[in-house]
Amino acid sequence: MTHRHAVQIYYEDTDLSGVVYHANYLRYFERAREHLLGVEELVRLWNEDGIGFVVYKCAMTFKEGASLGDLVEIRTDLHLESEYRIRFAQNAWRIGRAGHQGPHSMGTRAERSAVGEGAPMDSLHWERGLHQAPSEAKLLVEGSVELVCVDASKSLCRLPGGVVERLTATERS
Amino acid sequence: MTHRHAVQIYYEDTDLSGVVYHANYLRYFERAREHLLGVEELVRLWNEDGIGFVVYKCAMTFKEGASLGDLVEIRTDLHLESEYRIRFAQNAWRIGRAGHQGPHSMGTRAERSAVGEGAPMDSLHWERGLHQAPSEAKLLVEGSVELVCVDASKSLCRLPGGVVERLTATERS
Amino acid sequence: MTHRHAVQIYYEDTDLSGVVYHANYLRYFERAREHLLGVEELVRLWNEDGIGFVVYKCAMTFKEGASLGDLVEIRTDLHLESEYRIRFAQNAWRIGRAGHQGPHSMGTRAERSAVGEGAPMDSLHWERGLHQAPSEAKLLVEGSVELVCVDASKSLCRLPGGVVERLTATERS
Amino acid sequence: MTHRHAVQIYYEDTDLSGVVYHANYLRYFERAREHLLGVEELVRLWNEDGIGFVVYKCAMTFKEGASLGDLVEIRTDLHLESEYRIRFAQNAWRIGRAGHQGPHSMGTRAERSAVGEGAPMDSLHWERGLHQAPSEAKLLVEGSVELVCVDASKSLCRLPGGVVERLTATERS
Repeated sequence: MTHRHAVQIYYEDTDLSGVVYHANYLRYFERAREHLLGVEELVRLWNEDGIGFVVYKCAMTFKEGASLGDLVEIRTDLHLESEYRIRFAQNAWRIGRAGHQGPHSMGTRAERSAVGEGAPMDSLHWERGLHQAPSEAKLLVEGSVELVCVDASKSLCRLPGGVVERLTATERS
Repeated sequence: MTHRHAVQIYYEDTDLSGVVYHANYLRYFERAREHLLGVEELVRLWNEDGIGFVVYKCAMTFKEGASLGDLVEIRTDLHLESEYRIRFAQNAWRIGRAGHQGPHSMGTRAERSAVGEGAPMDSLHWERGLHQAPSEAKLLVEGSVELVCVDASKSLCRLPGGVVERLTATERS
Repeated sequence: MTHRHAVQIYYEDTDLSGVVYHANYLRYFERAREHLLGVEELVRLWNEDGIGFVVYKCAMTFKEGASLGDLVEIRTDLHLESEYRIRFAQNAWRIGRAGHQGPHSMGTRAERSAVGEGAPMDSLHWERGLHQAPSEAKLLVEGSVELVCVDASKSLCRLPGGVVERLTATERS
Repeated sequence: MTHRHAVQIYYEDTDLSGVVYHANYLRYFERAREHLLGVEELVRLWNEDGIGFVVYKCAMTFKEGASLGDLVEIRTDLHLESEYRIRFAQNAWRIGRAGHQGPHSMGTRAERSAVGEGAPMDSLHWERGLHQAPSEAKLLVEGSVELVCVDASKSLCRLPGGVVERLTATERS
């Protein structure tokens, strides 16, 4: 099953060309993988077992740049390549954008949420307001990332059993 | 009224000391201000009028570092200092963390959300799962940021009327 | 001819794993390409002609991580693939490191330079002090980046004549 | 004595406004402090004694933005405030820029260096070529940063003797 993670584009993400700086997509891909692997489990593995995930290979092809105010969705599919290696197919899709009126504009809802209304996390409201219909989503970047695990001595080690179980379930669902 | 914006801490945010690299809090503060000012309006002002917001002054005092898996809330209060300048008091609070069992652990919900369940944006579920009771929130960084506006010729200009109206409403609410 | 550009590793470059965050190598590769293409010319093309270089594809394979205090050299070879596209083979090599005594330690010189001695840019002295013999250099990351040009309307355009001339000279030298 | 460290502005440093993203100056300030404190010693303290330097307070006032191709010099003066705390007055000055012809343009030299000439680190040549006369330097950002030390248990600790000695020498020179 495809895992989905939303990323909003801020000033910090752009460069002088007006769109997202190319290297930043690797950061968005990593955020998505952290959710997919389970942040709770990642932190536990690191703190208790000294086990960390390391990028071994990555590749990206750029179709179009994301701009300030865009809502980008990282769609991830994974493949357990061996006991040692996971491959993630990760694509960035634009699924919403600010400043573009239309049937899926985030208009009113964003206006309301941005002034707070006592909501603990108004940006979540905003993001929900931004959703476009799937048919309008636009592919921006196609990527691929391979991960391996290293133990406390920085040596390659087998993927932890719990992670394999979880990923196998995700892969097949 | 205090504006609240949630930020999750990923690998990319940390440095070798194990906690968030100090300069990154300025990025979180900016994300919060973008929501507060209204992303829709910021993009419109930039694209149509060539008007942008520029940081004129900033200051931070660091109490404690945020770690991988923490959920940090940026709490922002604003003051319109003049027709030209806005001051934001912005503090970073830890409101949740991964890997710490307790009554407010994000455990089961995060596990569920991370494998997807068809939700379009599972990280939002995860963030909701992470909420701690307000009494447990911990102040990490106290900050202050002053903004001014510049027009297309990079000259200082009055704050746009729409922004002033919106901010006045927020300030008094 | 292989173009060489040195990058020093600072706190900001690392993540909690203790080595450089993987996405940052794309930034180092870009710094090297800017020098290779000519910063002067890049700025002129952008300001006067609205022409910018855009990454179309990239790929990296990671062998070993760089650490705080390492001096990393980006070695770049280029190939003009067509009138529209340049391919750069870019590798990151560790050519020096702090905290490792030996015949190529940067010791005394760094100590001297770091307290200034009136030198306008002491870090340059430091970098010179760090050089290891070529035989000791260690390959960290193998990369490949393809660039295209876009004009002011964001449409693909031919590589500017001056750039082609310069790159052809570099390629053949 | 004022410590000087040069930073070149690349694409990665800018945002869509066309100038350097404000938070990045904190990164340049940190690079300069690493050279001032001594990279060799910083790495040794961290690896052998588990001692790290932590930013406790910082402040910046922005006068003007740096652009792509600018050469920015970080000028640092330090004050040992106590056995526990160091204060750095750090300012960013533009000392050279690409694309601006004049008596101090980097023109020809940069052209030569960018195609390599077998030099191991051509960017250093480029930086030397960029120097402007001191009278033309332009103040961009005024900053102030306070550091403390923490030991392996993350508790505040006295500044290491070697660092104090070195900094006292720098302060008085």
